Amino acid sequence: MANIERIRNVAGRVKKERDQGNGVVVVVSAMAGVTNQLVGYVQEISGLHTPESWREYDQVVSSGEQVTSGLLALTLNEMGIPAQSFAGGQIPLKTDNSHGRARIASIESAEIRRALDKDIVVVVAGFQGITPDGRVATLGRGGSDTSAVALAAVLKADRCDIYTDVDGVYTTDPRIVPAARKLAKISYEEMLEMASLGAKVLQTRSVEMAMNHGVVTQVLSSFSDEPGTLLVNEEDIVEQQKVTGIAYSRDEARISLTGIANVPGMSAKLFTPLAEAGINVDMIVQNVTEGDGATDITFTVPRSDADRAIKVVEGLHSQLKYRSLHSDKAVAKVSAVGIGMRSHSGIASQMFQALADKGINIIVITTSEIKVSVLINEEYIELAVRALHSAFGLDKE
Amino acid sequence: MANIERIRNVAGRVKKERDQGNGVVVVVSAMAGVTNQLVGYVQEISGLHTPESWREYDQVVSSGEQVTSGLLALTLNEMGIPAQSFAGGQIPLKTDNSHGRARIASIESAEIRRALDKDIVVVVAGFQGITPDGRVATLGRGGSDTSAVALAAVLKADRCDIYTDVDGVYTTDPRIVPAARKLAKISYEEMLEMASLGAKVLQTRSVEMAMNHGVVTQVLSSFSDEPGTLLVNEEDIVEQQKVTGIAYSRDEARISLTGIANVPGMSAKLFTPLAEAGINVDMIVQNVTEGDGATDITFTVPRSDADRAIKVVEGLHSQLKYRSLHSDKAVAKVSAVGIGMRSHSGIASQMFQALADKGINIIVITTSEIKVSVLINEEYIELAVRALHSAFGLDKE
Repeated sequence: MANIERIRNVAGRVKKERDQGNGVVVVVSAMAGVTNQLVGYVQEISGLHTPESWREYDQVVSSGEQVTSGLLALTLNEMGIPAQSFAGGQIPLKTDNSHGRARIASIESAEIRRALDKDIVVVVAGFQGITPDGRVATLGRGGSDTSAVALAAVLKADRCDIYTDVDGVYTTDPRIVPAARKLAKISYEEMLEMASLGAKVLQTRSVEMAMNHGVVTQVLSSFSDEPGTLLVNEEDIVEQQKVTGIAYSRDEARISLTGIANVPGMSAKLFTPLAEAGINVDMIVQNVTEGDGATDITFTVPRSDADRAIKVVEGLHSQLKYRSLHSDKAVAKVSAVGIGMRSHSGIASQMFQALADKGINIIVITTSEIKVSVLINEEYIELAVRALHSAFGLDKE
Repeated sequence: MANIERIRNVAGRVKKERDQGNGVVVVVSAMAGVTNQLVGYVQEISGLHTPESWREYDQVVSSGEQVTSGLLALTLNEMGIPAQSFAGGQIPLKTDNSHGRARIASIESAEIRRALDKDIVVVVAGFQGITPDGRVATLGRGGSDTSAVALAAVLKADRCDIYTDVDGVYTTDPRIVPAARKLAKISYEEMLEMASLGAKVLQTRSVEMAMNHGVVTQVLSSFSDEPGTLLVNEEDIVEQQKVTGIAYSRDEARISLTGIANVPGMSAKLFTPLAEAGINVDMIVQNVTEGDGATDITFTVPRSDADRAIKVVEGLHSQLKYRSLHSDKAVAKVSAVGIGMRSHSGIASQMFQALADKGINIIVITTSEIKVSVLINEEYIELAVRALHSAFGLDKE
């Protein structure tokens, strides 16, 4: 939410839904810039190295949503629509004790139902709940979306509409491919791949929750009245494309180790310490490339973790006895995603051909049931996205 | 509280108290400008004409103190001092249902005591509590001071220090009389008169509460380390001056009615409708001035209510049958306040003489046990304050 004008805009949408006879629960985020400002205050004071500091972080940062919830309820009341705000603790939406990144434990819906029964619009401060100790806890990034989907699940809502800065999910990033098309529907599984691959529309967590509880979720723009993109079950997508979208991510770094002894347990010796350091390894390929039984391993990590990852690997030299360590932070990942891959073959080879046609070298390949990802030099990323978008017939006519 | 720097400053004071072996409960207000900003948002949306709108007002406006409480606890934790923030509902500080101007119903001190017993500094978000319905309620103007005094009373604190923009209570406004002196001590009763007469240091409500519960309260500056002014019982002030201070108020308007029939019940007919209109009448004088049994009545109201008061009085013309109605918004009130008046006589005449010496005309006089107030033309107000301050021997040597 940006400002008062935007709050009025939301109130107008609520009115429209209500005029159609729908009971409405609205989950709000903080106004534009507010959360950043509050987090800025906290970071000016604390390095957030203790559980107590995260507890106070939550006390501070949760206020942004609290303010918006009151302002929206107020706006609705002024329009003659009975409305009441609920902070996380007033619902209550109960969480665990993990301040700053709490998980939802349970939601008591009695208070909300009571309000809905009285025809009152329920305005919930998103992103927050209450711990067993009675403290405010925030849900971490994308927490308001998670609140919304969780509430929709508990209340068995007909639909969960998520208003964002974008007006839906596109076949790829329209800033790179102007011919990208908005998808009317996408399956949860595809959305998960799109989200975790760098399409910043919805956090993975809320998509997972929507999938697990079968919440029909619509992503749409708070700035326009266009229909958005509907997240649905796979079987609800009638006409399956081979490829639904092209996702990409620049937040990648590659680390390669050569000449590791190819004996059992080497992978564990490498990846366990990385996991313990909290480094999220994404792609992994291992090839026996030489005659002497040695092997090469290449893996990718988020670019911001690259230096830390390299340190960890250097510390393992005496155990892994690798010959050389190479790293490259100028890499990016591009992926073709689509549930259609389950029934269509040849997607991977079509993808490699399209990249080869543009002279783009593939560094690493990984595949899953519904996606093919390749790592390439970062400077080719836009070219690759455009080439694949076109090759899989996704361009608008 | 102004900003992070000021929060650090407060943390330093808390540390000093704690180093002396004192358990500390800190009550915080919002950071500078925050409450005004939040109230501004609310007013942009709503005229606040319904109880529901005040309920949402509280949901929004209470967040300012919540933020400061978290930030201060965080700052203390960073300094190695265990500290925990408490929003009003987390104490809980229970209020009635009067959103926007709630009264404190009770304070449960168990949670706070538990924290103090563990040597944890308790940081309370001031200005707020929780209603029987579980909603946040704010305490109205000066609410953080009220929270502090109420907590001090419940916890039987040795002292309640209130940090403000000024460094204590002065014999009069130092902007008008540079020779004004800071009072080391003032009695609750005098402070009440000073506060309600326009010395803006502490709200009447918190002074009353301190008096009723015998809370030793210190007013001091958050910007300096000077000792402030101690509010104490009358008997704790050893050397009583005849006059302790000169207070003044420009927020005055005079309304005079002439030629009212001097029969019983006329005053009630005039002042009951004014009270019902929510207009706070301050000074009242009634004189029989003519031979025909008619009387004149003059009274004062806050300047902002003058036009409304005049309308009410005009509506009463058929009942009161007054001959003429005069009003004057260019008046001001100046008062000499002192518990010493109880034992010294002649204060009023000394006051009138001092004003007469400067050629200042007195419009209305009212007196109480410990104060004498006069209404004068506003343009003489500074002159009058200086003359009285000097006449009662209050000027610094």
